[in-house]
Amino acid sequence: MTLLQSLPLTHFLKHYRLESFVRDCVAGIVVSIVMIPQCMGYALLAGMPAEYGLYCAILPTFLYALLGSSRCLSVGPAALISIILASSIAALNPQSDAQYIFYAVNISFLAGMFLLLMRLLRLGNLTNYISTPVISGFTSAAALTIMLSQLKHVLGVEIGAGLDFGETLRALIRSLVEVNWPTLSIGVGACLVLWYFKALFPALIKTFSLPTWLQQALGKSGPMVVVFGAAALVAVLQLDQTSGVAVLGNIPPGLPDLTAVWTGFSMDIELWKQLALPAFLIALMCFITSIAVGSSLASLRKERVNPNQELLALGIANLGAAVSGTFALAGSLSRSAVSHQAGAETPIASVISALCIILTLLVLTPLFYSLPLAVLGAIVIMSVFSMIDIAQVGRCWKLNRADAYSLLATFFAVLVFNIEIGICVGIILSIVLLVHRASHPHIAVVGRVGESAHFRNVERHDVVTDESIIAIRVDESIYFSNVQFIEDFILEQCSAHPHAEHVVLICSSVSFIDATAVDALEQLGEKLRETGITFHLAEVKGPVMDQLKRTEMIERLKPGQIFFTVDEAMRSLAVSKQNG
Amino acid sequence: MTLLQSLPLTHFLKHYRLESFVRDCVAGIVVSIVMIPQCMGYALLAGMPAEYGLYCAILPTFLYALLGSSRCLSVGPAALISIILASSIAALNPQSDAQYIFYAVNISFLAGMFLLLMRLLRLGNLTNYISTPVISGFTSAAALTIMLSQLKHVLGVEIGAGLDFGETLRALIRSLVEVNWPTLSIGVGACLVLWYFKALFPALIKTFSLPTWLQQALGKSGPMVVVFGAAALVAVLQLDQTSGVAVLGNIPPGLPDLTAVWTGFSMDIELWKQLALPAFLIALMCFITSIAVGSSLASLRKERVNPNQELLALGIANLGAAVSGTFALAGSLSRSAVSHQAGAETPIASVISALCIILTLLVLTPLFYSLPLAVLGAIVIMSVFSMIDIAQVGRCWKLNRADAYSLLATFFAVLVFNIEIGICVGIILSIVLLVHRASHPHIAVVGRVGESAHFRNVERHDVVTDESIIAIRVDESIYFSNVQFIEDFILEQCSAHPHAEHVVLICSSVSFIDATAVDALEQLGEKLRETGITFHLAEVKGPVMDQLKRTEMIERLKPGQIFFTVDEAMRSLAVSKQNG
Repeated sequence: MTLLQSLPLTHFLKHYRLESFVRDCVAGIVVSIVMIPQCMGYALLAGMPAEYGLYCAILPTFLYALLGSSRCLSVGPAALISIILASSIAALNPQSDAQYIFYAVNISFLAGMFLLLMRLLRLGNLTNYISTPVISGFTSAAALTIMLSQLKHVLGVEIGAGLDFGETLRALIRSLVEVNWPTLSIGVGACLVLWYFKALFPALIKTFSLPTWLQQALGKSGPMVVVFGAAALVAVLQLDQTSGVAVLGNIPPGLPDLTAVWTGFSMDIELWKQLALPAFLIALMCFITSIAVGSSLASLRKERVNPNQELLALGIANLGAAVSGTFALAGSLSRSAVSHQAGAETPIASVISALCIILTLLVLTPLFYSLPLAVLGAIVIMSVFSMIDIAQVGRCWKLNRADAYSLLATFFAVLVFNIEIGICVGIILSIVLLVHRASHPHIAVVGRVGESAHFRNVERHDVVTDESIIAIRVDESIYFSNVQFIEDFILEQCSAHPHAEHVVLICSSVSFIDATAVDALEQLGEKLRETGITFHLAEVKGPVMDQLKRTEMIERLKPGQIFFTVDEAMRSLAVSKQNG
Repeated sequence: MTLLQSLPLTHFLKHYRLESFVRDCVAGIVVSIVMIPQCMGYALLAGMPAEYGLYCAILPTFLYALLGSSRCLSVGPAALISIILASSIAALNPQSDAQYIFYAVNISFLAGMFLLLMRLLRLGNLTNYISTPVISGFTSAAALTIMLSQLKHVLGVEIGAGLDFGETLRALIRSLVEVNWPTLSIGVGACLVLWYFKALFPALIKTFSLPTWLQQALGKSGPMVVVFGAAALVAVLQLDQTSGVAVLGNIPPGLPDLTAVWTGFSMDIELWKQLALPAFLIALMCFITSIAVGSSLASLRKERVNPNQELLALGIANLGAAVSGTFALAGSLSRSAVSHQAGAETPIASVISALCIILTLLVLTPLFYSLPLAVLGAIVIMSVFSMIDIAQVGRCWKLNRADAYSLLATFFAVLVFNIEIGICVGIILSIVLLVHRASHPHIAVVGRVGESAHFRNVERHDVVTDESIIAIRVDESIYFSNVQFIEDFILEQCSAHPHAEHVVLICSSVSFIDATAVDALEQLGEKLRETGITFHLAEVKGPVMDQLKRTEMIERLKPGQIFFTVDEAMRSLAVSKQNG
């Protein structure tokens, strides 16, 4: 009972009214119009039969609706997840379709377990350690890879599976002589219709005075229109038999056969070891993309998503995918935005979408028989097109070169190597840059501003300095990885100021010090003393002073002192010089 | 010619006088007295025949003398390197002594190449990323492991090779019934003599009026005394034959047979892959320990060592070890300190030591025939005893808990798993702590001190605040890994202050901002605006302002403003409230 009360869905339904339910139904139906073709497209992208994309949007959607803290995140097949899956399973070289699906199910299971493990360890903020430029570089390159991988369907050519970006490109160019022109025409036509629906149609239907929900539904119906239009065209002209247009073919009607999945499942530790890395990357990308979508939509509604609750919900949803015998999933930006725009108020909207998909599986599958693969390819290409963000490179370049380099490095690592190496390069680069940055704090020699008690950077301000006293301000806490840098800076300044008798280290930004730093500063004090320079501290904050009192540093610093303010330090040292 | 001029040795010899040469000779001879028994002991520790320890101190010493930037670092066999070597080669399960040596030579080669690679990439400061508590925990645990591994020699029992700490301990306890009492007596006697020479003898010889160099030589002669004393005792009483005391046996006289090494060497990429990790760890520990010893001795002489030059010198020295067919080496703390105390002025002292070792190999090897292994074990145990630093735990505990935890984690990882896992745990822990720390900056709500223009942390000072304005000071640069933390803090403060109309983020410590942070702050501004709060910045430093001007952030912040000082912000916002 308490468990039931703690579910986010219970909270969402507390003041649920009929009006909200109607809105949720409309939104659910609109989303399913977008979702059904997209699911099949992303299934093909993942290298799975089309119906598995639909399976992916049933049980996992119910589970996410129950547990998720986002009101309108639409979970299900996602382009990024599908391409990582395709790339990593191809590397394992599966011997049959059954084995391919078996690998995919095991990856869903492991990805779910990783998400739950991250929940258990409360690693909801782990993704903070990946910067947006890295994600942007990765997403753009993945989108290009996805688009390229779908071109074969649009061109109607056969190229091998499991190729990387360069190989795919070369294979496509070689196969240009074998292009199936009817397929290409359908594919290009589908792209144009999709573009029309996206760019021009919404403005057109606004001119009719239709109810909003119908406008919404019509506005998003582009994929459905091309699906049924192309299927009807192929069926009527029998293009699949006369002109060799590749079609989806027979989709087994009804729900997935769960008993087959369950009997086939076993604890295969060796296999899991092989699948661990792709599963982990999928779990990571699933969480990153879902939380990004979820939290940006939540902020539009002045709400917040709970990262740890999301880990739980996404983990259980991916386990649900494994139980349904299908591939891993994530929150989808495009569908979630549709759901939000269509007025979804609670996860009931997702439940309605899932019911529509069940209905489709039960009743509509024969209609998809003649659906050309080129249309699904076109749908995927048009969906991921907006993921390519070139402007971000220029933005990063202007703001911070390091960001631009990590964006480009990740981008090219994905294209030159593969998706998985690309993510790893991006993550490692983020950490390396962070560590590097933390180890090179901003540090400045300061001087007095006029006659005031203020001290500023000598390089940026017109200030007065005393050649016998070097005042150095470090703008970060002092710890093992940056203390050497700070020491080097101080020693350089001492050689640059041959008349120096005192060095004052201004600790106004130091909120923390560690054992390595204390050792190093004590040794620095000794080194300086041997060259006739006394080392002092100033503006030590309360917590750091408490830390220092617990060591012998204050004793060892002598005759160096700890001054309350820089002003006090400068006056007192100048006086002692005059006296001495 | 320019090359010759650029060698550190050329620089050291610029004003070389006879007086200096005499001092170097004395220091070299004193060091060799310590070095010869230690080399053999560390060779046994590394699982190699004793003479290989001596080989290790010839060619590498010459090479280091030529290239090293430290005046008195004594390179050669080192306890830490030897134990890592023994542990990692045992894991590879060599099938014969020849294969064992072959592995060791390849590790020397790879370690040398890694050091040169680090030189090439100018990674001399890579070791800054390992904190002293981690090194301390590692060193203490390694010293314990070394001492335990030598106990078998002192007890005169046989236990298997390649055991970890727990296994060695259990094997030793089981073998206590088989203790060889004459061996144990010699071992314990050796320990007592060594302790006497270390603790009491120096004071005794000071009472005689001997020349300083003779005092030095006698003071350090403990190991030599036990070596020759015990060898004579065993030879005279024939303890090796009558009582089963294990002795060193026949040492092949003369220099190593280099042709055998050279003909046996080949590019074995598969083997190198297996040896890469231990070789890398050895390179890392070689560099860390050598630079620590070198720079602390250099600072006593008011000099500095050049980390990148040291990488080159140590790399070439380890390649020299590979060429000599022996195991990897590093700078030794104990011997370098002896060299410094004995008055070494230039690396010529090391050259003299190496010549003494050549002389030993040519002439003295027969004298070592009856040397009991128990004595070498005792020498190693007494040498590494001082590496155990228990006080450091308490020191870290008082200063900073995280340091104490990483020390203990590294310590126990070495003991419970093995040396290599221990180092890896320590390094990874250092990085994780650093990243974690960098992502949780100090951040405080501030208020006005009396009527002044100063603002201080509300939790530490008695300050005046305005309930409609929240002023928040962040004490670090803002970038991808900490911006979420900062955002969460600000949103929490906004919920805690329901009457807030303005948030002022004080950027006095922000010397840098990245693309992720700009995005997040823009979004934060929008979120706050939707809840009726305006987001402002204050005290933005010059370089950050330059960065912001290159983005649209200043536009997007509006109606939020950027104030020059906090005082200006507070006054201006308070006035606008009265007017509004």
